[in-house]
Amino acid sequence: MAKVSPRTLSGFMELSPRDQMKRERMLQVPRESHPPYGLQPLDAPIADTAEVLLAKGGGDTEKQIYRFLKGDSDLALRFDLTVPLAKYVAARCGELSFPFRRYQIGKVYRGERAQRGRFREFYQADIDIIGDGKLDVMCEAEIPSIIYRTFRTLGLERFVIRVNNRKVLGGFFEQLGLASLTGEVLRTVDKLDKIGPEKVRALLTEQGVPEEKADEILRFIAFRGNTEETLAFLETYAGKSGRFDEGLRELRTVVGSLSAFGVPEENFMIDLTIARGLDYYTGTVYETLITDHPEIGSVCSGGRYDDLAGYYTDKQLPGVGISIGLTRLFYVLNEQGLLSDELVTAPADVLVTPMTEDLSPAIEAATALREKGIRTQLYTEQKKFKAKMNYADRLGFPFILLLGEDEIAQGLVSLKNMTTGEQQALPVAEAAEAIRAETERRNAGALIRE
Amino acid sequence: MAKVSPRTLSGFMELSPRDQMKRERMLQVPRESHPPYGLQPLDAPIADTAEVLLAKGGGDTEKQIYRFLKGDSDLALRFDLTVPLAKYVAARCGELSFPFRRYQIGKVYRGERAQRGRFREFYQADIDIIGDGKLDVMCEAEIPSIIYRTFRTLGLERFVIRVNNRKVLGGFFEQLGLASLTGEVLRTVDKLDKIGPEKVRALLTEQGVPEEKADEILRFIAFRGNTEETLAFLETYAGKSGRFDEGLRELRTVVGSLSAFGVPEENFMIDLTIARGLDYYTGTVYETLITDHPEIGSVCSGGRYDDLAGYYTDKQLPGVGISIGLTRLFYVLNEQGLLSDELVTAPADVLVTPMTEDLSPAIEAATALREKGIRTQLYTEQKKFKAKMNYADRLGFPFILLLGEDEIAQGLVSLKNMTTGEQQALPVAEAAEAIRAETERRNAGALIRE
Repeated sequence: MAKVSPRTLSGFMELSPRDQMKRERMLQVPRESHPPYGLQPLDAPIADTAEVLLAKGGGDTEKQIYRFLKGDSDLALRFDLTVPLAKYVAARCGELSFPFRRYQIGKVYRGERAQRGRFREFYQADIDIIGDGKLDVMCEAEIPSIIYRTFRTLGLERFVIRVNNRKVLGGFFEQLGLASLTGEVLRTVDKLDKIGPEKVRALLTEQGVPEEKADEILRFIAFRGNTEETLAFLETYAGKSGRFDEGLRELRTVVGSLSAFGVPEENFMIDLTIARGLDYYTGTVYETLITDHPEIGSVCSGGRYDDLAGYYTDKQLPGVGISIGLTRLFYVLNEQGLLSDELVTAPADVLVTPMTEDLSPAIEAATALREKGIRTQLYTEQKKFKAKMNYADRLGFPFILLLGEDEIAQGLVSLKNMTTGEQQALPVAEAAEAIRAETERRNAGALIRE
Repeated sequence: MAKVSPRTLSGFMELSPRDQMKRERMLQVPRESHPPYGLQPLDAPIADTAEVLLAKGGGDTEKQIYRFLKGDSDLALRFDLTVPLAKYVAARCGELSFPFRRYQIGKVYRGERAQRGRFREFYQADIDIIGDGKLDVMCEAEIPSIIYRTFRTLGLERFVIRVNNRKVLGGFFEQLGLASLTGEVLRTVDKLDKIGPEKVRALLTEQGVPEEKADEILRFIAFRGNTEETLAFLETYAGKSGRFDEGLRELRTVVGSLSAFGVPEENFMIDLTIARGLDYYTGTVYETLITDHPEIGSVCSGGRYDDLAGYYTDKQLPGVGISIGLTRLFYVLNEQGLLSDELVTAPADVLVTPMTEDLSPAIEAATALREKGIRTQLYTEQKKFKAKMNYADRLGFPFILLLGEDEIAQGLVSLKNMTTGEQQALPVAEAAEAIRAETERRNAGALIRE
């Protein structure tokens, strides 16, 4: 029979079992860290009509979207989690209670040019808080506390949530008489990290910003200081533009509440260069950098917007949201060897290995361990001892449990720690405790090493 | 601006936040119940090349598959989790260690005719154990213990895992001189539940089975008895066909090990009518029925097969697997009102409601609760007291925590139980304990009521 080659599409991540366990553990982090913040899970369909998904249009979306006909339906795969959220909220305005707070962890699809480290199917983890007409600025202050807990749960300590406010930037451009250029100037400023100040300056002047004003913009965003110093610096621009003053007030509120929200000062700063490229942000904007790995770029970004779903509904739906690109984060950390090796990646914490023909004692031991919640694999293939040990070694089981005639006669099991090589005969309940203690120790560690 | 209607595709389940929480809890069950059995998570791509997904071909697959071009690629969405598994194992034969044990919970896509209760995007939860050339029959005995724990974790007690063996049926047909018709006869017998014995008899004779042999088949599969009686009944057919005898031996092994695997007798039976429609099953086959709701049909089915991936590789890959159609199960149980109302479906277990202009004490209380792991929503919108209470009521928060001048002055919080109406002032740590106790009680209950 002619065989079909079992290949996987380029840009679609398919992992070895070991890496799969690590990614699973990473996906588990937002599932653990989000619920304490009062967020509903949302798990919207992956496909929608092309009309719905492209309602917002613009940018590379039309080119990158996976779109297809099925019968008479013109369908597409979602390319982010925001548009499906907008659809969901617009369709259910009457039924939802606001603020509507949701998180979603799911796959999205973008047919980008294949490139190392770029994926066409990838996980995003999003959080959004949506208001009905209004949404208090305090929600913008709460978001960094969710980011903080998520990255702490991943095992990081050295990361900084950088915050800015689009009204502060926009208001400052107004003061310079550049109100009509705000959109372009913001998008240019957003490129600072990538292209550097010289090219930003050149682009700004190309866009019609007079040279001395381009310099002023660069001076403004170049300000570096702690939170207090930055606020004092911004205060010197106050009183000249309503928009600026409103942004500064919001920034003060956000910054002023962070300690009550449990975010330590060292994990947070005001960074006036943060602009975010998307037009729809209107207030606080966030980026998150891993201190020792700035080359990864922002690992969690987002901001405040005033109009979530204008292309579906006349209802004003302001919100604030953040997104983590989990697949890319996983890929980069894994490539750089930054994922902990302590995590148990075997299918189970113990491999129960019968040494007698009658398998019942081994099955009973496995059942007893499972009832105690121990991840237990039972090896029942009729192979030589050496083959069984090789299997345990290759998969990295932390323990094997051996059951031969002697152990059975004594009502004990032999537990072997595969790391230390130690082996002892003990009752199955004690074996369970020993396995639990060691695997809890290994799994409790940080997923990411700094 | 012209608005796009925010609609969802027919056959694509999109739930209210409340139902979403229930489905989430249901999806959580296999994530909790599978790991104790030593299974690797697999999370393969949702899309593959059409060539790969259709390699097996046959049946309704070609008609139902979502297939599309992107650039030069002819792509499709997976229509089950078995074909992507076959691809994965075939592609990584050299790298995997066997037995390879995996579970996967994921969405699959079938463009079936839209029908109430039929979905085009739906969740399956699959388990498979794959051997390299050989796989011991004990793996077939282990599978019911995984099914058992999963349904117990869902909260069910009254369900029966029905087991049969294709070699027993095939061997019996051989004894009747019907070996050449085995495939058709099996598929016809599989319809017994749906069409009844009269129509099965008619179909069998149409397929060329002589009338008296059709009657004998119907008598054979109609046998009812406990496990011991059924095995004794089967013993009367022993010694006439090697295939039958092998099947009977396997059935004895499976049945004989169940008690060691912790499966109580009342949750298990041999049912000679179970045939499973698919040709590729070769040994033990399983169906699972909820005792009080047989009309739902089998909620977990599967069986032993000898050739997982013959269309990709010459390597012999036998295995045993089961699948739960989680979306359909959720839909049916929800429709019939069988999902517990005790489960907390609010975004959080407590709504922290500030009553003063300064929000810091409320934020600090929320942070303290969150640090203790309590799911906590902070309500910061500037609304009237009544609006806040309505919000808490509509979303079904079990508790609200009120913080006014008095409480702040005393260093206490007022905790109100929204079910009983009771309210008391107490320190925040004690409030955390009260919330934890009550919500653990509510969430520990069965997800499904019998």
